[in-house]
Amino acid sequence: MTPWNQVTIIGVGLIGGSLGLALKATRLARKVVGVGHRQASLDEALARGAVDTASLDPAAGVQGSDLVVLATPVGNFGDLMARIGPALAPRTVIIDVGSTKAQVVAQLEPLSPPSCTFVGCHPIAGSEQRGVAVARADLFRGATCVVTPTAATPPEAVARVSRMWECLGMTVRVLSPADHDRLLAEVSHLPHVVASTLVRVITADAEPLFGPGWADTTRIASGDPTLWRDILLSNADEVAAALERFEVTLAAFRSALSRRDAARLEALLAESKARRDKLVKRNNGP
Amino acid sequence: MTPWNQVTIIGVGLIGGSLGLALKATRLARKVVGVGHRQASLDEALARGAVDTASLDPAAGVQGSDLVVLATPVGNFGDLMARIGPALAPRTVIIDVGSTKAQVVAQLEPLSPPSCTFVGCHPIAGSEQRGVAVARADLFRGATCVVTPTAATPPEAVARVSRMWECLGMTVRVLSPADHDRLLAEVSHLPHVVASTLVRVITADAEPLFGPGWADTTRIASGDPTLWRDILLSNADEVAAALERFEVTLAAFRSALSRRDAARLEALLAESKARRDKLVKRNNGP
Repeated sequence: MTPWNQVTIIGVGLIGGSLGLALKATRLARKVVGVGHRQASLDEALARGAVDTASLDPAAGVQGSDLVVLATPVGNFGDLMARIGPALAPRTVIIDVGSTKAQVVAQLEPLSPPSCTFVGCHPIAGSEQRGVAVARADLFRGATCVVTPTAATPPEAVARVSRMWECLGMTVRVLSPADHDRLLAEVSHLPHVVASTLVRVITADAEPLFGPGWADTTRIASGDPTLWRDILLSNADEVAAALERFEVTLAAFRSALSRRDAARLEALLAESKARRDKLVKRNNGP
Repeated sequence: MTPWNQVTIIGVGLIGGSLGLALKATRLARKVVGVGHRQASLDEALARGAVDTASLDPAAGVQGSDLVVLATPVGNFGDLMARIGPALAPRTVIIDVGSTKAQVVAQLEPLSPPSCTFVGCHPIAGSEQRGVAVARADLFRGATCVVTPTAATPPEAVARVSRMWECLGMTVRVLSPADHDRLLAEVSHLPHVVASTLVRVITADAEPLFGPGWADTTRIASGDPTLWRDILLSNADEVAAALERFEVTLAAFRSALSRRDAARLEALLAESKARRDKLVKRNNGP
């Protein structure tokens, strides 16, 4: 693809920093500008080579860029767009990398200047860790990116943004913002709530007894609480629906257990194992 | 510690095979005999050096051993003990490595010949994978082993068995069988049911969208269904109690979400994160 002339990444943490490293490693951006609200983080991003220059001022940081990436928590997107809007060059493409899409797209599309294009994106990559210190150029390789255009999004902007993610090694799926949120509630937001609940439920006496199974099952509960508060609130209806389905499905387990129904219990466990093994194998064992 | 003269391991899979490798690596056993019901597995155990000799016949396999380890699924322990009982030498120590203890200890203690001693053990190590192919000598290092004596267990047998696990790098905790089962329901059996349920709840459209978070949260759902059926059934009351507490705790999340209570939601997430981070740090990040 034709490289971007200048890319501004607002929020240079794990995802933003990894994107900077990846765009530079693949030469998909001639120059990367980092914007943050702490000079120390920007200095670290510069030192790691994730960005070429840095600014504490979003409006100054986006000047002259043909791609702007919103990589802060989703709760900040509205304020940010209001601040950078007047400074954006005509025909700038704006993308976000947030974990929810319906609210974000509905909010940002009208705020985006008429001469610019907003394209919602969700690269499904990352970990419970934070900050540019853990960023890496290959974070996106082998993972999926969901791109969520609306009827108003110019197809050529969708194509160019999709091509960029593909060049970083991602499989791109185009979904409506609403479909994205419904499906991500199932594979990401619900598991987060469940993992967080699993941590809360253990008694103090059980603490020394956890093994690698508990550690893995609850890993995502170590994610940033503010970030996840925003994700859950901005997709509350879909998360509530997934939670309800989860509780119904859990009740089937509870019932088999209370009836000491060995055959049913084994069938439930075997179906889950077969399905998970198939999915993990198909996705090449992420 | 004084090495065992001969150790028989019945069930040479991930745990049994790793124990054979570890006992030989540390010279805690002069000779290790493997017993299994498939010659192919025994041949693999021999080839990997996990056992020195092998037998398809449990009664023949235990002859002359001063330690016998039951490392099959817990559902087979009763049959096995009945078969090996008459062949055991006086003063043989018998241990198991099963994931539940109350039923196992209540069943095996009376079946054990009067001249022998049974000591319930649960080394909290392993993974969702199976078989001697994935066994490794350092599987137990840094992990916890629960030893569950009763009023009838001679203290010297508890001490010797505990010393063995410690020599393999484990931290030993002595608990009653009932306490073990109550606490393991919280940190192991409940998470298994929950992970299995998370797999069942996703729709086909969501399948391509899972990321590393989902893969980790559901990893244990790929465990052996027969093994886990037996574990859940043999600890059904405690698992049911843990499930009930889990559902109540989950309801607090659901309520905060439905009220769009950002402060409460963040507090719940922050408490879980703080607690998990503390535990994982204390256990040296398993």
